[in-house]
Amino acid sequence: MNQENSPFRRNLMLTVAYDGSPYLGWQRQARGPTVQGVLEEALGKLCNHPVTVYGSGRTDSGVHAKAQVANFYTNSKLPLSAIVKGGNALLPLTVAITSAREVDFDFNARFSATGKTYGYDFLTSLVRDPLLVKRAWFVGPKLDWSSMAQSLPYLSGTRDFSSFKSSGGDVKTTVKTIKDIRVLEISPELKRLSITGSGFLRHMVRTMAGTLWLIGRGKLKPEDLEKIIEAKDRSRAGPMAPAQGLCLEEVYYD
Amino acid sequence: MNQENSPFRRNLMLTVAYDGSPYLGWQRQARGPTVQGVLEEALGKLCNHPVTVYGSGRTDSGVHAKAQVANFYTNSKLPLSAIVKGGNALLPLTVAITSAREVDFDFNARFSATGKTYGYDFLTSLVRDPLLVKRAWFVGPKLDWSSMAQSLPYLSGTRDFSSFKSSGGDVKTTVKTIKDIRVLEISPELKRLSITGSGFLRHMVRTMAGTLWLIGRGKLKPEDLEKIIEAKDRSRAGPMAPAQGLCLEEVYYD
Repeated sequence: MNQENSPFRRNLMLTVAYDGSPYLGWQRQARGPTVQGVLEEALGKLCNHPVTVYGSGRTDSGVHAKAQVANFYTNSKLPLSAIVKGGNALLPLTVAITSAREVDFDFNARFSATGKTYGYDFLTSLVRDPLLVKRAWFVGPKLDWSSMAQSLPYLSGTRDFSSFKSSGGDVKTTVKTIKDIRVLEISPELKRLSITGSGFLRHMVRTMAGTLWLIGRGKLKPEDLEKIIEAKDRSRAGPMAPAQGLCLEEVYYD
Repeated sequence: MNQENSPFRRNLMLTVAYDGSPYLGWQRQARGPTVQGVLEEALGKLCNHPVTVYGSGRTDSGVHAKAQVANFYTNSKLPLSAIVKGGNALLPLTVAITSAREVDFDFNARFSATGKTYGYDFLTSLVRDPLLVKRAWFVGPKLDWSSMAQSLPYLSGTRDFSSFKSSGGDVKTTVKTIKDIRVLEISPELKRLSITGSGFLRHMVRTMAGTLWLIGRGKLKPEDLEKIIEAKDRSRAGPMAPAQGLCLEEVYYD
C-alpha cells in the first residue's frame, strides 16, 4: 500500500496461531467462518474501523498454524500489547494473536515473506488416536520410513515442482527452492515431515506427503521421484494427503 | 457378575482412548452423547446383542482418556482383533478401542482396579494456544512452579482427602493413598501434574490442580495444605480446575 494515498498511518504485523478444523481455511468467504474473517471482525471492533488483514498465504480448510504472519493498516493508537490482549479477547478460542509489532508501511506479510516452514504430521500407531484426529494423518505402523527418508533428497533444492501443484492459484513460477526437508520424530508414534522452502505451490506439501506415503507403502520407489518431477505432470505424483495433518510452523522475513 | 446365572460366556477387557470434549462424560445418559453410550452402541451392533460396558470409573464431561479400561460380557465368537477393528469402524473418531483381551469372568474394570494415573495439563504460555484449548488449562506464565513443587509432598501418602472431594458419588472411604505426585515438563510451555493413586474421590485431581494453582499465584503457601487436609472441609481447598486439562492416563490391575 502507498502511504501517501492511504487513510492509515500504522502497519501492524501479527503472528497468529489457529486450529484450522472449524474454519473454511484462511481466506474470507461468505459461506462460512474463516481465519481471516474472524481476525478482521475482531480487529475491526478493536480499532473502530473496517480492517483488512493480509496473510502470508492462504491455508486450506482444516489446516492449522502455529505462526501464520499477517499485517493490517490502522489509525488506532492502541499500544501493541492492547492489540494482542484486546484481539484475543474478541477472537474465538480457536484463533490467537501471539504477538504484534509495528512495521514499515510497505511491509506486506505475503510479498515480503522469504520462506516458510510447514509440518505434516503422520500418526503411525496401530489404532487411531482420538486426541489427534484433527491434528495428524493416521497412516498406521506399516510404512517403510527408511524408503521415505531416502526419498527426501529428490524433493530438495531448486526445482520445477509442477508435478506437486494443484490447478488454480495465481502463480508466476512453478520453480521453488526447498531449503530443508526432513522427518522429525515428535513421539514414538508421531512423525513430522518438516519442509522449509522459499515458497510453495498450491497443495504442494500435502501432495509431497501423499507421494511419500505411496513410497512408504512400496507403491513407488524413491528414485521414481526423479521422473515424477521431470514429467511436470500432477497426475504422476501421489494423492493429496488430508488437510488435518498440515500446520504452518513459521514464516520468514529478511 | 456370577457366571452361572449369566447368559454370557466371555468377559472382554478393553483399553479405550477418547477426546472427552464432545461428550457429557463417561456415563450413559439420555440427554446427550457419552463415551459409555457410544461404546455400548458400537459393541451392541458388532456383537448382535445389547451390551453393557463397565468402566474403571466415570470421567466428567470434557475429561479425556489415553487408556480408560472397561469390560463387557458377550457370547460373540468374534476374535479379539475383530472386536478392536470392528468396534473402531463403528465408533466415532473421538473414541477408539486401543486393545482387547479375554479376562476371567469375575474381572470388573472398576472393582478389580488397584490404582490409576491422571495427568492434569497446565499451559504456561503468555497467550493461549488454539491447538490446546480443549486439552489444557491456560494459566499463563506467572505461576510460581517452585512453590507448587514444594507443595506436592503434602498431597502424597495415605490421607483423608475429604477436603478435595466434591459432594456426591458413592464413597466407602475418603482415605486414599497417593503413591506418586509430580510435575512433568511436557514442553517448554506445557506442564503436567501427574498423580498416581490407589483411588480418587470425586473431582479430587481437579481440586488438587486448582489448589496448586492458588499456591502458584501466592494466595496460599505450600504448608497451608497441612491445615486444609486436616480440616476435612471442601470449602478450605481451592477451586476445581476446568475439565479440559484432565486426562486419565492409565489404570492398574494386579
